[in-house]
Amino acid sequence: MSKLNELQAYLVTNEIDAAFITTPDNVFYFSNFNSDPHERLLGVMLFKDAEPFLICPKMEMPDVIAAGWQYEVVGHEDTENAWDIVTKTVATRNTPFQKLAIEKAHLTVERFEAIQERFENIVFVGIDEKINAMRIYKSEEELVKMRKAAELADYAIQVGCDAITEGKTEMEVLNEIESAIKAKGYAMSFDTMVLAGEKAASPHGTPGDRKIQQGDLILFDLGVIYEGYCSDITRTVAFGQPGEEQIKIYNTVRAANENAIAAVKPGVRAMDLDKIARDTIADAGYGEYFTHRLGHGLGISVHEFPSINGSNEMVLNEGTVFTIEPGVYKTNVAGVRIEDDVVVTSTGVEILTKFTKELVIL
Amino acid sequence: MSKLNELQAYLVTNEIDAAFITTPDNVFYFSNFNSDPHERLLGVMLFKDAEPFLICPKMEMPDVIAAGWQYEVVGHEDTENAWDIVTKTVATRNTPFQKLAIEKAHLTVERFEAIQERFENIVFVGIDEKINAMRIYKSEEELVKMRKAAELADYAIQVGCDAITEGKTEMEVLNEIESAIKAKGYAMSFDTMVLAGEKAASPHGTPGDRKIQQGDLILFDLGVIYEGYCSDITRTVAFGQPGEEQIKIYNTVRAANENAIAAVKPGVRAMDLDKIARDTIADAGYGEYFTHRLGHGLGISVHEFPSINGSNEMVLNEGTVFTIEPGVYKTNVAGVRIEDDVVVTSTGVEILTKFTKELVIL
Repeated sequence: MSKLNELQAYLVTNEIDAAFITTPDNVFYFSNFNSDPHERLLGVMLFKDAEPFLICPKMEMPDVIAAGWQYEVVGHEDTENAWDIVTKTVATRNTPFQKLAIEKAHLTVERFEAIQERFENIVFVGIDEKINAMRIYKSEEELVKMRKAAELADYAIQVGCDAITEGKTEMEVLNEIESAIKAKGYAMSFDTMVLAGEKAASPHGTPGDRKIQQGDLILFDLGVIYEGYCSDITRTVAFGQPGEEQIKIYNTVRAANENAIAAVKPGVRAMDLDKIARDTIADAGYGEYFTHRLGHGLGISVHEFPSINGSNEMVLNEGTVFTIEPGVYKTNVAGVRIEDDVVVTSTGVEILTKFTKELVIL
Repeated sequence: MSKLNELQAYLVTNEIDAAFITTPDNVFYFSNFNSDPHERLLGVMLFKDAEPFLICPKMEMPDVIAAGWQYEVVGHEDTENAWDIVTKTVATRNTPFQKLAIEKAHLTVERFEAIQERFENIVFVGIDEKINAMRIYKSEEELVKMRKAAELADYAIQVGCDAITEGKTEMEVLNEIESAIKAKGYAMSFDTMVLAGEKAASPHGTPGDRKIQQGDLILFDLGVIYEGYCSDITRTVAFGQPGEEQIKIYNTVRAANENAIAAVKPGVRAMDLDKIARDTIADAGYGEYFTHRLGHGLGISVHEFPSINGSNEMVLNEGTVFTIEPGVYKTNVAGVRIEDDVVVTSTGVEILTKFTKELVIL
């Protein structure tokens, strides 16, 4: 059953007349059309019992068809009111349009009010949970793409390691990494991080003109998009012999990463994985320096459902892909994060990112 | 008067108890704190008659203070419900909280409902228009940054021209451009476009492994961020001697760009500028190939208020920055777009982007 058919079956079961999907990532998921419309309206209108349509800026209509969309496409120009076109196209379906499912976590109040103005007696229900539940399961076809994305991330880390020399800046190293990926024809899934020394001890630092020097730990956090699917990896490497406490912190974070990964299997709860990593770090005396959640879902979006944190009781099942990325950030001592992308298999776990977790000393 | 004070004065005048600002670009505008919180809550709560606060992920609190925020900052962790913290912090202000201004074009239905659940008898009003009206005017301090951003965009086009040789791919040229900008320590304001030959005839094509060959027109569309402010430039250059119709199209688009720019002055309407460019192109017989609006506002966001299109009656005043980017896309003949960033001055126009509009033949 196609993704669109599965969502339509859900509308039938729940007696919902239609669903309007406007998150670009979800539009891609259901239509294979990948586009960022900025402020312009892009959406898939799916009906319980009529043909769906996709509305997009007029100039993108050929791309929608090229992407494989087999139903009606309606375009709007900048001088037109896109809601007029939605209203008119809905009317051609001649089907009930009272109970409408929307993505509450995405639809803006402005669009919400525009729909209310145009359709009388409309009742809204959320469709987010259903779509999250669909997207959380990755098919083998999707996993093939995610493995490729992870392979490219491994390659990018290698490029980063090869690029490091004394006196080079974080930005120069970053530049070599992104150039190598672009030269292969791929895009990064988010802004690459290369942080050296004391900069790595900030979990959200910004790469700049900090020069690499002997004794630095260098943190790489990056990802690559392969056919619409993202990877996300972090590795921390040493330039020159690291100090005793730096090694202790590295080994602690690595153990936290590996202990959490070892516990991944169908039925485990997100919060349990977070606790395993957190306990490992706390037992080593660094609990206060692990200041963020363990990880996040990964797929078409680089941050997606589910959140792997200490309060998420969700049970993880086969096909769910997420990151495991414990970190310790101790000012003026060390910033270390080690992040892998993993998928729950029928019996345990498959690790998508494969770059070594031995401490690399350059 | 600071931007925050100006917005507070608006709340007083309009008897609005508070405003909750959650668009990252607007948070930056009012707080100087520039961050993409992804799905996490980031917002500035401004009161009619109490001290504002900024809520952000806990790990970003030091960055907020470093950015110069002088009021209360409250942090939330991934395991906490950020709305609990908003509710609690609002309560400490001990001030009416019934009429709340929100950004309707940004706030999601989910967050809208979360606020409704937590505060009784709350009434919402939109604050978008007021903020747009503020942001549409660029102070001299902002213009200084935008001139620098435009200068970097000019430089990037020069790098692109220098990079072009026969057989090089679009991606390779793109790569050299982005590397040069990153090496200077700056980021692009959006994904750089380098489109060659027939690819340039699609206004939203994607750079790939198309190789540059004799007789190609090559379209560059790119921008650079300088201290949070964006530029956005398009130039189309020729590799080898272009054909007669390619030259005619180039000159037509250039005339459209220059005619529209010549008409910019305080009091002109957005739609009039669009019409001037559109008429120029139509008179040359290419009207059907100019398939998008003339331009868009530019500033902290690469697409912002106002839209320069054929139906926008808005009168433009001093300090407004926007793009003028007519284009003609005739399949298998030529794709040409020429885009400048301009600001309305007290007497006319200042053009921020300065790269030549003579047809460059490489």
